[in-house]
Amino acid sequence: MIVVMEITASEDQIQHVSTRIHELGLKSHIIRGTERTVIAAIGDDRKIKIESFESSSGVSEVLPILAPYKVASRELKPEPTQIQVLKFRAGAGAVGMIAGPCSVESEEQIVECARAVQKAGGTALRGGAFKPRTSPYSFQGMKEDGLKLLATARQETGLAIFTEVMSPEDVDLVSKYADVLQIGARNMQNYRLLEAVGRSPRAVLLKRGPSATIEEWLLAAEYILNEGNPNVMLCERGIRTFESHTRFTLPLASVPYLHRKTHLPVIVDPSHGTGHSYLVTDMAMASVAAGADGLIVEMHPNPEKAASDGYQSLDFSQFNDMMQQCRKIADALGKQFG
Amino acid sequence: MIVVMEITASEDQIQHVSTRIHELGLKSHIIRGTERTVIAAIGDDRKIKIESFESSSGVSEVLPILAPYKVASRELKPEPTQIQVLKFRAGAGAVGMIAGPCSVESEEQIVECARAVQKAGGTALRGGAFKPRTSPYSFQGMKEDGLKLLATARQETGLAIFTEVMSPEDVDLVSKYADVLQIGARNMQNYRLLEAVGRSPRAVLLKRGPSATIEEWLLAAEYILNEGNPNVMLCERGIRTFESHTRFTLPLASVPYLHRKTHLPVIVDPSHGTGHSYLVTDMAMASVAAGADGLIVEMHPNPEKAASDGYQSLDFSQFNDMMQQCRKIADALGKQFG
Amino acid sequence: MIVVMEITASEDQIQHVSTRIHELGLKSHIIRGTERTVIAAIGDDRKIKIESFESSSGVSEVLPILAPYKVASRELKPEPTQIQVLKFRAGAGAVGMIAGPCSVESEEQIVECARAVQKAGGTALRGGAFKPRTSPYSFQGMKEDGLKLLATARQETGLAIFTEVMSPEDVDLVSKYADVLQIGARNMQNYRLLEAVGRSPRAVLLKRGPSATIEEWLLAAEYILNEGNPNVMLCERGIRTFESHTRFTLPLASVPYLHRKTHLPVIVDPSHGTGHSYLVTDMAMASVAAGADGLIVEMHPNPEKAASDGYQSLDFSQFNDMMQQCRKIADALGKQFG
Amino acid sequence: MIVVMEITASEDQIQHVSTRIHELGLKSHIIRGTERTVIAAIGDDRKIKIESFESSSGVSEVLPILAPYKVASRELKPEPTQIQVLKFRAGAGAVGMIAGPCSVESEEQIVECARAVQKAGGTALRGGAFKPRTSPYSFQGMKEDGLKLLATARQETGLAIFTEVMSPEDVDLVSKYADVLQIGARNMQNYRLLEAVGRSPRAVLLKRGPSATIEEWLLAAEYILNEGNPNVMLCERGIRTFESHTRFTLPLASVPYLHRKTHLPVIVDPSHGTGHSYLVTDMAMASVAAGADGLIVEMHPNPEKAASDGYQSLDFSQFNDMMQQCRKIADALGKQFG
Repeated sequence: MIVVMEITASEDQIQHVSTRIHELGLKSHIIRGTERTVIAAIGDDRKIKIESFESSSGVSEVLPILAPYKVASRELKPEPTQIQVLKFRAGAGAVGMIAGPCSVESEEQIVECARAVQKAGGTALRGGAFKPRTSPYSFQGMKEDGLKLLATARQETGLAIFTEVMSPEDVDLVSKYADVLQIGARNMQNYRLLEAVGRSPRAVLLKRGPSATIEEWLLAAEYILNEGNPNVMLCERGIRTFESHTRFTLPLASVPYLHRKTHLPVIVDPSHGTGHSYLVTDMAMASVAAGADGLIVEMHPNPEKAASDGYQSLDFSQFNDMMQQCRKIADALGKQFG
Repeated sequence: MIVVMEITASEDQIQHVSTRIHELGLKSHIIRGTERTVIAAIGDDRKIKIESFESSSGVSEVLPILAPYKVASRELKPEPTQIQVLKFRAGAGAVGMIAGPCSVESEEQIVECARAVQKAGGTALRGGAFKPRTSPYSFQGMKEDGLKLLATARQETGLAIFTEVMSPEDVDLVSKYADVLQIGARNMQNYRLLEAVGRSPRAVLLKRGPSATIEEWLLAAEYILNEGNPNVMLCERGIRTFESHTRFTLPLASVPYLHRKTHLPVIVDPSHGTGHSYLVTDMAMASVAAGADGLIVEMHPNPEKAASDGYQSLDFSQFNDMMQQCRKIADALGKQFG
Repeated sequence: MIVVMEITASEDQIQHVSTRIHELGLKSHIIRGTERTVIAAIGDDRKIKIESFESSSGVSEVLPILAPYKVASRELKPEPTQIQVLKFRAGAGAVGMIAGPCSVESEEQIVECARAVQKAGGTALRGGAFKPRTSPYSFQGMKEDGLKLLATARQETGLAIFTEVMSPEDVDLVSKYADVLQIGARNMQNYRLLEAVGRSPRAVLLKRGPSATIEEWLLAAEYILNEGNPNVMLCERGIRTFESHTRFTLPLASVPYLHRKTHLPVIVDPSHGTGHSYLVTDMAMASVAAGADGLIVEMHPNPEKAASDGYQSLDFSQFNDMMQQCRKIADALGKQFG
Repeated sequence: MIVVMEITASEDQIQHVSTRIHELGLKSHIIRGTERTVIAAIGDDRKIKIESFESSSGVSEVLPILAPYKVASRELKPEPTQIQVLKFRAGAGAVGMIAGPCSVESEEQIVECARAVQKAGGTALRGGAFKPRTSPYSFQGMKEDGLKLLATARQETGLAIFTEVMSPEDVDLVSKYADVLQIGARNMQNYRLLEAVGRSPRAVLLKRGPSATIEEWLLAAEYILNEGNPNVMLCERGIRTFESHTRFTLPLASVPYLHRKTHLPVIVDPSHGTGHSYLVTDMAMASVAAGADGLIVEMHPNPEKAASDGYQSLDFSQFNDMMQQCRKIADALGKQFG
């Protein structure tokens, strides 16, 4: 870290900061500029509360130098991680396609969706059994019955199953049926839950919280990795901004940026990322072009009648069109798609 | 709700929307404008997924008319709710003062803080025993030992104890020691946790998520109220914006706005809301002037050595000064303070 | 517009609103719901200050129905507009490529850039002669000398010249040399300037202000169109959000959204939209895939030595690579590129 | 500045950066950490494009140390500036009160407003003659006729006149009638206009752009100060965030933050900062408590009939109440108010 002193900082204040740095097991290096003094701390300060230096008299600000995450870092593992579950593959040249309804509603609905995904060339099925809903008055999901129907759909099609787990005590139950555990955006910093999926044998799809910085997101991934589960995929699903013509703002530059910072695959969710079915296909295409390692898209046999998120779900015909358009781009870039 | 049709919508599309409204048990009312047709749905549509109408052909947008929350609403209960716990009071003319360290670190530390709060005229003590931390490598709290020390501090001073609960399975344990259960900003939409505290006999302090709209926040409160717990306080602690000179942006207009929409007391947290100890006192004063029903402030005997959040904690002398300044304003406005 | 009354609104208040609507030359239509009354105003309310109804007693909120812009609207002109200047074409299947340095620095620099653009298949050259700079101590541009050098570069290569105009009194001067007048993001709501370019015979590239809504942006375009200049291109260059790993957040969903709302071509600027040269190529590719009608990209013979914006400028080799990647995508989608 | 190198940076890359620093007339200081090397540049780098170092190979990021503004800086002039115009005073213990309608509409209206301001104890009158409007179809102001009416109102009451100037060529005209020139939020980075008012003998009220950082705002002030006009007041009027229950988000922590960074007075505009008349009084009170050096508030004899901004204007009775509440707080804090 670099500690920037106030212009008016006294020699005593400078020495006090330097001494505190030494007490924490680091080396300090004082640099006297023409206007200000700055003090560099040399050594691994990841486990030190470096912001606490702001409380020392005479300190103007503290600038971190080292990224606070380690296992997720590309510096630690330069080659990209590919995650494979059944026929689904994401990362290192493979663009994995996950699609399905927001909520599992019935056997007919979920099997019909699975067949449509398979037919269009996708390799994974999404579907919510435990549903986090903004309003307590909304449909909360079919719970274990929904999980069983997802397993049925897998049996019929061979698709890998992605579904959300909302609470640490459900991790074992959901792991029994699902192939990949999804952590929803609202739970990105539910640390108990992150630790619990970190101890599960299943791969994890970690959605970005709508106001999370990239660093906070990678630290959330680090909670999972740190428990011993190496199979983490990041899912960009949009951030909250002043824009109101889309439900969230989908900041696709996070895809190439993450590829510089981490070896983990990056999946994009253009359904939540826009909130309107008429924007999904164009943004799915843009995601593939930006280098996404996968897509997760909401579709439904009859969006108008969907139990949740119909407004952002594609119908089967729109979904087929999206698959064709995305494949054109993946082909042009020499990526495996599906 | 009002369904706004596209300019090009056909008569069939208009009739289809009207029919769907009837099928959902509401009355529909078609209004033909000079350019567009809009369709009003009459009746309580809170349990209907009104956004699903966006999926119907010919629909341009759907405008909600009714607020989706009920029990939290000021329309249901026009008079403000006052919450009293031991000597702490918030709402209806009382400005309750909660202060203490970010983390409980030792008996000496927490009792010293409690005495400083009591001496300065505060009525409640905050202190974290279970700590949600952005990095897995940071201090995670003293857990049950910390709760016991908080109970000791209550015994010494009579202050009401506010502390965070992070997981449904901890609610009973934390309720054993604490007077008020705090839901942290990261958990505002952890619905399992909201339901669990909704079944607890303790009052709840519900922090706003940094990207939550007022409506989402009130719906989170509704989850708690809906389980039968009427003692909910809302805590504004800042939102995430492009501003980087403060850790979060403290949007104080939410205080008078909430007073129009809900009868629940509104507490402000100027420590997390600014992230810098040198801004806390001025924003605490502004909060009282804006009509806040309480303040929650971080303080520490020695912020430089605090286990967490030292950079935004006041020392005892700064805290005393803040208390005096806030009392001047409360007195000028005829509010009870402390 | 729809005027939503308070639940407690009296009959007198309802009638007062209805009367005001009539006085403004519109018809009113009162709809009495189970909880609230809403009043629809029928007729063209674009020139009425509809928000003023919020000042009437008993009114809860006012919801606009009609978009406030007209000439820019796709409802008025359903087919997309293609803008052609020399060999540059944008819109209706053509993806126009504009590239060049942030600032014109010398004849050698600008001609060298123009040749590199031409060689790689681009059709337009950008280059700043009048530079709006955040700090008064930064390089402010070569002014008319810079314009002359741009004209020289056109003579050498046939590229269309895009350059910024900062003030109404410079419009004639800049129009003498440039083919397309660029309105910078900071001037998106400089109405005098918009009116001045609206009276110019040159096409206009209107950059989005970093906190402008889509509606405000289209209304800014409307200022230009309203003066009689039909050749307006919109340029998405990123919005300000909490993200700090990019200088701005590039919200590509604005491209397909704008295509629904307006017939005007939409150009994307991935250089300002990310602020880092290492993100430009991926976001340029994503822009083409999202349906952009053109790209404007900063490049420089030696970015390290650039007078401005070097950190987001591609060198010639990176630029060539970007052109090839973008062309692959345009080809895959059957678009004309260059 | 501090240049942070990539972990993989070569010795050649490190030496190249060091050499570039020397070439720019600064000293360089290489610090080799356990993981990374950082290079400090010593000397005044305000006129150097420090971001250009990002273009050098092997550089990870560049951290500025010195604030880029000088004349506005509190480090240069530690004591606060008080600006006095007629009886209006702002700064150094004085809280100046500016009020009036959004637009000047008629002699009767503006004189009536001026008398109401004077009677309630205010010392300055606001009123727009040149109106920047989002839509070209909205009322654009009375222009010079409006300025004359403002001068009449001053003659009647002795209030100082604040009014907006929109274009460099209007500065002389507006200066003829007004006491203080207002730069609107949309023009905060209209550098030609800033330079023009910097050469005027009138004091300037510089509104913050809705997406401007504090640093960009102070650099805009620096443009004015740099031309020789020392009488600049900053006006916080809200920023654009995801919050939609207020038109903008009023981030009051900018008041104490600015007081640390600059000696210039800080005025708050709770009318634009909230966009709803029912929130103005509480936020005016909060502003005074946060340390604001003045308030600028919209009021109108009949907000429902106002030519612009009626929804955020107080009527005379609400205005009187606001004045009394604010005075209570100013009195409690020992500030001069009015």
